[in-house]
Amino acid sequence: MIQPLINPKELPFQLYEVLDTEALLARERFSEHSKDTFDAILNTADKIATEKFANHNAKADSQEPTYDGQNVHMIEEVKHAFDAYSAAGFMAGRYDFDEGGMQLPESIMMACSGFFMAANPSTAGYPFLTVAAANVIRNFASPTLVEQFMPRMLSGEFTGTMALTEPHAGSSLADIRTQATPADDGSYRLKGSKLYISGGEHQLSENIVHLVLAKIQGAPAGVKGISLFVVPKYRLDEQGNPKTKNDVALAGLIHKLGYRGTTSTALTFGENDDCYGYLVGEPHQGLRYMFLMMNEARIGVGFGAAMIGYSGYQYSLAYAKERTQGRLPPHNSPTDAATEIINHGDVKRMLLAQKSYVEGAISLCLYAARLVDDINTLNAEDEKRSTEELLDLLTPVVKAWPSEFGVKANDLAIQVLGGAGYTREYPVEQCWRDNRLNPIHEGTNGIQALDLLTRKLWQANGAGLRTLQHRMQQDFSKADGEFCLPLVTALSPYLNELQGLIPKLAKGLHSEDQPTLLANAQCFMNIFSSIVISWIWIRQANVAEAALQHCEQADKHYYLGKIQAAKYYIHWELPLIQRDISLLNELDDSCSGMQADWF
Amino acid sequence: MIQPLINPKELPFQLYEVLDTEALLARERFSEHSKDTFDAILNTADKIATEKFANHNAKADSQEPTYDGQNVHMIEEVKHAFDAYSAAGFMAGRYDFDEGGMQLPESIMMACSGFFMAANPSTAGYPFLTVAAANVIRNFASPTLVEQFMPRMLSGEFTGTMALTEPHAGSSLADIRTQATPADDGSYRLKGSKLYISGGEHQLSENIVHLVLAKIQGAPAGVKGISLFVVPKYRLDEQGNPKTKNDVALAGLIHKLGYRGTTSTALTFGENDDCYGYLVGEPHQGLRYMFLMMNEARIGVGFGAAMIGYSGYQYSLAYAKERTQGRLPPHNSPTDAATEIINHGDVKRMLLAQKSYVEGAISLCLYAARLVDDINTLNAEDEKRSTEELLDLLTPVVKAWPSEFGVKANDLAIQVLGGAGYTREYPVEQCWRDNRLNPIHEGTNGIQALDLLTRKLWQANGAGLRTLQHRMQQDFSKADGEFCLPLVTALSPYLNELQGLIPKLAKGLHSEDQPTLLANAQCFMNIFSSIVISWIWIRQANVAEAALQHCEQADKHYYLGKIQAAKYYIHWELPLIQRDISLLNELDDSCSGMQADWF
Repeated sequence: MIQPLINPKELPFQLYEVLDTEALLARERFSEHSKDTFDAILNTADKIATEKFANHNAKADSQEPTYDGQNVHMIEEVKHAFDAYSAAGFMAGRYDFDEGGMQLPESIMMACSGFFMAANPSTAGYPFLTVAAANVIRNFASPTLVEQFMPRMLSGEFTGTMALTEPHAGSSLADIRTQATPADDGSYRLKGSKLYISGGEHQLSENIVHLVLAKIQGAPAGVKGISLFVVPKYRLDEQGNPKTKNDVALAGLIHKLGYRGTTSTALTFGENDDCYGYLVGEPHQGLRYMFLMMNEARIGVGFGAAMIGYSGYQYSLAYAKERTQGRLPPHNSPTDAATEIINHGDVKRMLLAQKSYVEGAISLCLYAARLVDDINTLNAEDEKRSTEELLDLLTPVVKAWPSEFGVKANDLAIQVLGGAGYTREYPVEQCWRDNRLNPIHEGTNGIQALDLLTRKLWQANGAGLRTLQHRMQQDFSKADGEFCLPLVTALSPYLNELQGLIPKLAKGLHSEDQPTLLANAQCFMNIFSSIVISWIWIRQANVAEAALQHCEQADKHYYLGKIQAAKYYIHWELPLIQRDISLLNELDDSCSGMQADWF
Repeated sequence: MIQPLINPKELPFQLYEVLDTEALLARERFSEHSKDTFDAILNTADKIATEKFANHNAKADSQEPTYDGQNVHMIEEVKHAFDAYSAAGFMAGRYDFDEGGMQLPESIMMACSGFFMAANPSTAGYPFLTVAAANVIRNFASPTLVEQFMPRMLSGEFTGTMALTEPHAGSSLADIRTQATPADDGSYRLKGSKLYISGGEHQLSENIVHLVLAKIQGAPAGVKGISLFVVPKYRLDEQGNPKTKNDVALAGLIHKLGYRGTTSTALTFGENDDCYGYLVGEPHQGLRYMFLMMNEARIGVGFGAAMIGYSGYQYSLAYAKERTQGRLPPHNSPTDAATEIINHGDVKRMLLAQKSYVEGAISLCLYAARLVDDINTLNAEDEKRSTEELLDLLTPVVKAWPSEFGVKANDLAIQVLGGAGYTREYPVEQCWRDNRLNPIHEGTNGIQALDLLTRKLWQANGAGLRTLQHRMQQDFSKADGEFCLPLVTALSPYLNELQGLIPKLAKGLHSEDQPTLLANAQCFMNIFSSIVISWIWIRQANVAEAALQHCEQADKHYYLGKIQAAKYYIHWELPLIQRDISLLNELDDSCSGMQADWF
């Protein structure tokens, strides 16, 4: 089955109809662009993703990278894809024209990344990690470091990594032990071990620029003593070319469930006391710098999860339209022709659930990207600040919800294919394995739930939540059509429940009930994210219902599908949070009351 | 981490405390047994599973069987395990003493199988499939066929398969095309293709006995024209030894997501018009025979899913007790020692959810096994019949619920391990992949939901449901302790909702609402199975609460854990069905109203 990576209607719908991305053209930063240039870059992404990435998604999975003790080897298609990506200028897509960038909005760049994630998430990992690392250097490093490393990362000559996790310290970065000792030349010598470093070794680039969290000798304990360093695989000569091998060693490749094309490495720094590192910004500020990137990375994780989910959805949809099995009344006779399985009610359910998850997730992530654009280009300081507050609040949801429901979507895609879905002859099982990473990395979903409940909800005295509620009400007030009005009515009691919970939580978190509330943090994530996704679906349905009045006959089905998916989400998925509302209201202690010895 | 396959308290609790398996000793069939002989066989299973099966579970996954065009090769440990299993007499464990069997109850045999499934589900597949095929032959084939094949299958010299699925016919067996033509010697010549045949080719045994569904020329269309044949890989000579290669060819091995140690094959029958098949029983009765085995197989699938789920749970539990990360108040300082992650509320939640799923599933499946024992050994015809009706009703739940929640448990096990869980260096990802087969095979869970809603619920005028309700009430009336009484109170409104739904469904299924109800069949499965599992948990909690009064101090934790898991299930999982109750009551048409063109 040959099919487009993404339904050609989907991204234009999200970008131009739901988000009004064209409005960005009025902002000074994007004034040299037009809808045509946006479309052109989207088409380029589609073409490169289709031709250079999708072609080896399965192959990179079945022939994963190997290490012979000297070098890491991988199939050559990865390098071709990486080079095509950087040659097309995507690495610098977000940057200023005078930096050699394309000065494109985040909304458009994220939409472009969707093609690569749908085509081949593990090959896409190499350029994406490089862009993320280059961003940190650009924002926080000294002009010298910026000059040395950034241009070569944006050209694809150098690649980048983020080296945070250590064998004993994953979620708890406070406990990292990698040491940095000041040297006479102003640089540092690093010593320590890092684990699960994606892209930590390969032959795709002339150099690998590791961004390493470490503690300068004598630094305060915990997160307040963490600094960030640039640690290149090869140190640069005076011309800025990679020359001397730095003391960074590959201890081994980690073999993963999925995402197999992206090397995951155990790295040793300073085994021979000769590992040079260059401090980024100020000492002890490393976690703050890293978290600015981490917040972007979390949106990227959510969107990647959405796109892998989407990929499986599209495949299972195409399969269900072709595969025949069984019969529907009145054609019950064994001599009647079998029907396409998409006509069976339970298959419709599994496809519609997938659609509601993945298109809901895509829409949410692009909404977040638009907030980034607004933060970057709005002039009014107060608007900018309230947009930042909103994005802060939504970030844990943008990371956790698509990653949880992307995997669920892929699970349903397997089920739609039945026995075929369980074989490696079909692509959906790989989607499921690849996507399973997303609830784990860049802060597990458990960490996201805690972050939301204990921090993001209360930031700036709850200003983010107020902005969100205001924006929701604006969208709900538009929902006056026959399809959308009942959806808002159905959502309304849950909004009231959420409203009623907030003061209880505020109080409970500062009382003896705290451990119980923390054990039930996932309940709040369920409530909050399900309401957010309902709103995101009502936004889509609003646009679709309006479009039905004037669209061409051929487009009606697409819009009706959007409305039906919104209805499905609000009728089938949203009501599940009644459970979570009760558990929080009742301060249920089933989990917090369980003792380790009782298991 | 070296740990027992199953917590040594678990099976004795289920068998002797919850199910009173010792009561079976009073039945004539088991009168030569004692609790000691039961325990001895359980210990033997544990020992062989630990020594011969668990040792190569990961190896059989990473070095899956290969086909060189002539033979299928696999790691030698599989053969050693298979031989140890049959040498210990497990193949014939259920059979009469005078058949060379051990005349053991199904309850005990299933508990034994738990060790093998926990240790290595894909190697266990070979003997389990053989036993299932031998059962069909024993029950339905002519004395000649029984004599030729059964003893050698029970000795492990021959293995067995079930060859149902064809490339175009999976769920819809009515459409199979394999043809059987009568030959002069009373046998048949078969011609056709079968797909996803587990154990369809290997070198573990001298012969492979395929049980093949096919249509005799001129048979009625659909399910009424399906016959069952014994088709051996080698035809037997007059001494009953495998001699001439039959015309069954391996078209290829299927490469699966998990369960990789069990070969999955595409087989071609009669490519050279020389494939001998021997009719089992009467013509056109094949599906009926196969379904008797299928019902047993479905219970086996449920239990297998429960045990793979259990395996992941046990591993993640041991990991969470050892791995330290982060701190809990009042030890918040970075200089305080980190805590074991089992002490974090969200980790407790993930472990407790797993416990509620897998121990609920184990208890349900052993309950079903006990019903089989009662059907086989009760004297009173009416008790026997009502037990059969109950088992019929429960079978779709026993297949579908553990397979759905076994995968969910394994997903949570991965999440507890975090990054480590995503690597193939740890066993939980394999559990997750292996277990994903179970919602698919032996009738997808979608088929189970339809079977429950449209058939099983109404059989014998709903006698099965009445028996179930009667048995539930018996258990609830015992639940008068401080822990259990509130659980029954919490369950009670859902029982009323179920009661109220039944007549609506009965009416709706014979009205124009039928397509809507069929599209929402999973809702009824959710409601019914969640109520059944709540009952199963109350049964366990009842026993635990009573035991707390007199047990030794050392056992108290185990019983408290049972009570807490029951509480978790009823507080956290059961309330989710309120959504399903509403959707069925409101005849929600979100799914049935979706059109294929709208996706």
